[in-house]
Amino acid sequence: MAAVNRRIVLASRPHGEPNAAHFRLEEGRVPTPREGEILLRTRWLSLDPYMRGRMSAAKSYAEPVAIGEPMTGETVAEVAASNNPDFQVRDLVTAFSGWQDYAVSTGKGLRRVDPALAPPTTALGILGMPGMTAYTGLLTIGRPKPGETVVVAAAAGPVGSLVGQIAKIKGAHVVGIAGGPEKCAYLTEELGFDSAVDHRGDDLPGALAAACPKGIDVYFENVGGAVFEAVMPLLNDFARMPVCGLVAGYNATELPEGPDRTPILMRAILTKRLHLQGFIVWDFADQAPAFQRDISDWLRAGRVKYREDIVDGLENAPEAFIGMLRGRNFGKLVVRVA
Amino acid sequence: MAAVNRRIVLASRPHGEPNAAHFRLEEGRVPTPREGEILLRTRWLSLDPYMRGRMSAAKSYAEPVAIGEPMTGETVAEVAASNNPDFQVRDLVTAFSGWQDYAVSTGKGLRRVDPALAPPTTALGILGMPGMTAYTGLLTIGRPKPGETVVVAAAAGPVGSLVGQIAKIKGAHVVGIAGGPEKCAYLTEELGFDSAVDHRGDDLPGALAAACPKGIDVYFENVGGAVFEAVMPLLNDFARMPVCGLVAGYNATELPEGPDRTPILMRAILTKRLHLQGFIVWDFADQAPAFQRDISDWLRAGRVKYREDIVDGLENAPEAFIGMLRGRNFGKLVVRVA
Repeated sequence: MAAVNRRIVLASRPHGEPNAAHFRLEEGRVPTPREGEILLRTRWLSLDPYMRGRMSAAKSYAEPVAIGEPMTGETVAEVAASNNPDFQVRDLVTAFSGWQDYAVSTGKGLRRVDPALAPPTTALGILGMPGMTAYTGLLTIGRPKPGETVVVAAAAGPVGSLVGQIAKIKGAHVVGIAGGPEKCAYLTEELGFDSAVDHRGDDLPGALAAACPKGIDVYFENVGGAVFEAVMPLLNDFARMPVCGLVAGYNATELPEGPDRTPILMRAILTKRLHLQGFIVWDFADQAPAFQRDISDWLRAGRVKYREDIVDGLENAPEAFIGMLRGRNFGKLVVRVA
Repeated sequence: MAAVNRRIVLASRPHGEPNAAHFRLEEGRVPTPREGEILLRTRWLSLDPYMRGRMSAAKSYAEPVAIGEPMTGETVAEVAASNNPDFQVRDLVTAFSGWQDYAVSTGKGLRRVDPALAPPTTALGILGMPGMTAYTGLLTIGRPKPGETVVVAAAAGPVGSLVGQIAKIKGAHVVGIAGGPEKCAYLTEELGFDSAVDHRGDDLPGALAAACPKGIDVYFENVGGAVFEAVMPLLNDFARMPVCGLVAGYNATELPEGPDRTPILMRAILTKRLHLQGFIVWDFADQAPAFQRDISDWLRAGRVKYREDIVDGLENAPEAFIGMLRGRNFGKLVVRVA
């Protein structure tokens, strides 16, 4: 066991796109668990777009990370020492232990990971928070019916790729939006999407309209910006729009130029009787057993697939995170820490 | 029976606020019902904000009125002649027979009005389309829980006044927004609202915040514009927003000045997990029996009240309609035609 705990702290709050200077790698002593506590050693760290929000002081559904504190994040960690009879050394768990090598926990909120059932990293992806975000948002708010058209952006990512695959299982016509020909080919050739649209192409609105000849019944919103603008005119009456992310705007430093287009959106909501609903995965915590059961079944049956983008070394987490906000990852972004 | 059928047709499409020149009073022959048909004589004509949309060519949930055709509208009409065994002369019905003295109908879609049960004009108000809009939108989308705060604008109008009264029956804290001290006094003194905010006052955001110390859980949206801007920052997590009208923008000729504030709304939807849903009353047609039963019960028990603003003479319909879009009516606006 290393005698040093490396941790990546928030050095300053970004105005716009984060860069390396907003993070700082610090070294400290490995903490010592007290009676009833355990010492966790981070094996894998999940990197997710929501973390950009935690770097800002703006009010959101969670508190921001304080300056000088480790970045928050979910990990798969190994119990390295235990003063808690419920945990044995070498047990694997998921924990919100952040961007660091070690953390102490009382055991509260940890979820056990059984490496015999699935690769441990899936607890951060398809069987974890991103997977459950896709499952709950699509099925509870989106509610696709057979034959309806479902559109999802960031479709090669961990949330979007599962949204599309579940929508296919439910009988929908599925269109994914992704950046670049490689990701688009992956959607149609590997994941069974009906079509894929490259948002880097010349004419996103035209390409999306061509891929959705019957309009759009469900738009799973995790991007916003230009993609949302292209989706809006194609929405059918009674379309549903689960909203779980707006990554295209996370680095924005000012509002887009005018005029104020809010009345266009409100008029569409009224005249098309749209249903927009924001959510975060914890709002649907009671669906966790159904989610685990269904996705495990579908994984075993080969009906859903996943892809991971593994980066080596905690010290490389900031660069990988910055790249993710630019769409550089291809699959669930995970840092192998130890 | 008059030998002349007066009708008010759409003379031209307004750009901005409608004026008298957009309407034309024409006289023609009273139509003759064929076999199986009936002749309807308009007794009362309902005037409602949605009619402004029908004057425009823009795509909406209903077809626009054609130039030279009578304005559409719901009426309480009397059967003046019948070649249909299901209808007797002097029967009262509601019909979508428009801004005219007479119309022919097959009987399809007519709803009988029993003047022994309630004044016939209530079939155009609290027991009709506006009442059912309030009932279905509030209870199906808004779903107020006891102790929650419900805000409604145009609160002295036929939809808003019932929204607030139903919300009170459901145990909510109810705040109405209306124009002028007389309407505001009516809300709190006659209808039992907890408070009323005058949108013509100096500081609408401040006054609304003071009236909603625990934030807003349900905002019944029928106005848009400055009222919506004042509501937005006060919305609580998981707030619901039935959207059934945007009357503040119906006469707008251009979008508001920039910047584009759409991302502010989308970010609020995401971080507060808001639920916005557009609807029109016909989307909930299956709730008509429950609506009729509940409102009739509450009327008999004195638990809900209504107010009508009756204008005499079909020829005065255009002026009354133009005034309604400026908030000049006080209660359900109905034209007494015959």
